[in-house]
Amino acid sequence: MSGHVIALSGGIGGAKLALGLDRVLAPGELTVIANTGDDFRHLGLHISPDIDTLLYTLAGLDDPVKRWGRRDESWTFMRALGELGGETWFQLGDGDLAIHVERTRRLAAGESLSQVTEGLRRRLGIGARIVPMSDESVATRVQTDEGWLDFQHYFVSRRCEPRVIGLDFVGADLARMAPEAAAAFADPALRAVVLCPSNPYLSVDPILALPGMRKALAACAAPVIAISPIIAGQAVKGPTAKMMAELGLEPSAATVARHYDGLIDAFVVDEADAGLSVTGLEVAATPTLMRSLDDRTRLARFVLALADRLAGPRG
Amino acid sequence: MSGHVIALSGGIGGAKLALGLDRVLAPGELTVIANTGDDFRHLGLHISPDIDTLLYTLAGLDDPVKRWGRRDESWTFMRALGELGGETWFQLGDGDLAIHVERTRRLAAGESLSQVTEGLRRRLGIGARIVPMSDESVATRVQTDEGWLDFQHYFVSRRCEPRVIGLDFVGADLARMAPEAAAAFADPALRAVVLCPSNPYLSVDPILALPGMRKALAACAAPVIAISPIIAGQAVKGPTAKMMAELGLEPSAATVARHYDGLIDAFVVDEADAGLSVTGLEVAATPTLMRSLDDRTRLARFVLALADRLAGPRG
Repeated sequence: MSGHVIALSGGIGGAKLALGLDRVLAPGELTVIANTGDDFRHLGLHISPDIDTLLYTLAGLDDPVKRWGRRDESWTFMRALGELGGETWFQLGDGDLAIHVERTRRLAAGESLSQVTEGLRRRLGIGARIVPMSDESVATRVQTDEGWLDFQHYFVSRRCEPRVIGLDFVGADLARMAPEAAAAFADPALRAVVLCPSNPYLSVDPILALPGMRKALAACAAPVIAISPIIAGQAVKGPTAKMMAELGLEPSAATVARHYDGLIDAFVVDEADAGLSVTGLEVAATPTLMRSLDDRTRLARFVLALADRLAGPRG
Repeated sequence: MSGHVIALSGGIGGAKLALGLDRVLAPGELTVIANTGDDFRHLGLHISPDIDTLLYTLAGLDDPVKRWGRRDESWTFMRALGELGGETWFQLGDGDLAIHVERTRRLAAGESLSQVTEGLRRRLGIGARIVPMSDESVATRVQTDEGWLDFQHYFVSRRCEPRVIGLDFVGADLARMAPEAAAAFADPALRAVVLCPSNPYLSVDPILALPGMRKALAACAAPVIAISPIIAGQAVKGPTAKMMAELGLEPSAATVARHYDGLIDAFVVDEADAGLSVTGLEVAATPTLMRSLDDRTRLARFVLALADRLAGPRG
C-alpha cells in the first residue's frame, strides 16, 4: 500500500523511527514534522537540535556512539573558543558547526527555516521531507524548583537535574504551522500520522501547541498512531520518566496514552507492556526498543500495517 | 631607553616585525595599529584577517608552515560545509573559526572592534596592544582589468591574478581613527612610529587613508621609520611587486621610499639595497629578511636604535 505518512518527531528517539519509516517508504512518501521548541540562538548561531538530529540520522551522518551530533567529529573549535574565553557549555563539534553557520547565513539572507531545511535535506540526499513545525519562533521553557529555565539551560547546562513543575512553549499561541506541515495534513492520499516515541511533554507537546495542529489531527481521515516512549515504566533515553514523576504522573505507557487521549486512534506499546487496555483506543504491542536498523524498519512496518488495518479497505 | 612605540601593520610581513618589537619591548610599550581594510563578512561572520594574524603571531599560535591561520589546525568544518553546499572558497580552519564566531558575537552584543580585540589579546596573554585602525567599516576594493573586486575576492578567490589598475578604501573618508590609536599618537612618551614591511598599497595605505592619520604622523615628535617590504626588487611574500609593476611603478625599495615621502624620517632597506639614497631621508641598511625569531628581534632592535639615534639625547 502506498500513500503519504506524517511523523511528528523530536530528536533522538523520534529520529530512530523516522529513519525506519524513511527506509520502508518510497522517497517523497514521508513528511517528518520536527519539534523546534528546542531551537535557540547560541554564539550568534541559529541551532535547531531536533531538525539536525533528524537530518544527521536520515543521512547516516549521526554519531552511533554518543547519540547526538555527527560521526567522525573533531573538537578543535571548542578548544580554541575556550582559550579565547568564549562560552563552552554547549558542545559544538567542528563538523556540526557547519550546519549552524549555514542555516544562520541562509536565514539572515531571507530564507525561511522550512526552505533552509528543505535545501539541507535535498543536499544530504534524504528521501523524506523534514519540515519544522513552524517557521516562527517557539521557545520551550521549563518551570523548575530553580525557577523558569530556557530549555537548553535546563537540558544541557543543568543536565535535567532541577525538578520540573511545568512547561511553557513561548510563542506557540501565535506561531503558524509551517506551510509544508499544513499541506501534508491536507493531502488526500494521507495514509497515517505517527507520533514518534519522543518525549510527549518536551518534544511532541510543542508541536501540538501550535494553533490548528490538534484540529488537523482530529480532522484527518488517516489513522493517528502514537508509539510509547515509556517501556515498563522506564524511558529508553532522556528525562521522560523522571519528568513524569516530578509532574505527579505515573511513568507508564498508560499515562502517555491518556496524555494523547482524543488525538490518536491507536497506541503502540512494547511487548513488556502487552495487555495494556485504554478505553476507546486500539492498543497494539510489539518490540519497540530500537537498537539496530532492522529494529527501526520492523517497527515502522508494524506501525504502517496497523494504520492500514485501521483504515480498512480503500478505493 | 624606554617609551611607547607605535607600529602600523598589515598581516604576515608586518606581524613578523610586530613580534620582534613585542619581544624587545616591555609589556604595554607597543601599540600595533592594524589594517582593517581586508575585513569582511563571510558566512555571517566578521573576519579581520590582519588582526587575527597579529593575534596568532604575537600569541605564538600562528602556523609556521602555511604562514596564515592557526597551528595544529583541523578542517572538519570546511568539509562538512562543502557537503551542505555552503561557500568554501575562503578556507576557515576549525580553531580559526572560534575567533570569528566569538568576535561576531561580541560585536553583535554591542562591543566595538577595539574592545573585542583588546579582550582577545589580553586573553591570549599578549603584551602589546593590538588596535584596529578604526572601529568603523573600511573596505579595500581593487580595480582590475576584470572590474572592481572586493579585496578578498581579488586576494583569495582570484589569487591576485587580475591586473591591478587602482585601489579604493570604501568608507575611509568617514571612518574615525580608533580611540586607542589616536591616544597612542598623543602619548608624550612616544619613542618611535614604525611602518612595518607590509604591502604599502594594500596594508598601510588604508591606515593612512583615515582622516587625521597623516596629520598625526606629521605632528608626532618621535621619529617615523618605514621598513621596505621590497628586497632587491622582489617582494618577500605576496603580490606587492606584481602590483607595483601593474600600477606602472618600478618594484624597488626606492619606489616604496618615495611612496612614503613626507611621512617618514627614516627608511630601512635590506643589505641588498645598501647604497640607496633618497633626498631628505635617512636611509639605513640591515638584513631585513625575517626567517627566525632572532631575525625579528634583531630587526626590531635595529629600528629602535635608529629611532633613538634620530631622536637625539632626551631629557
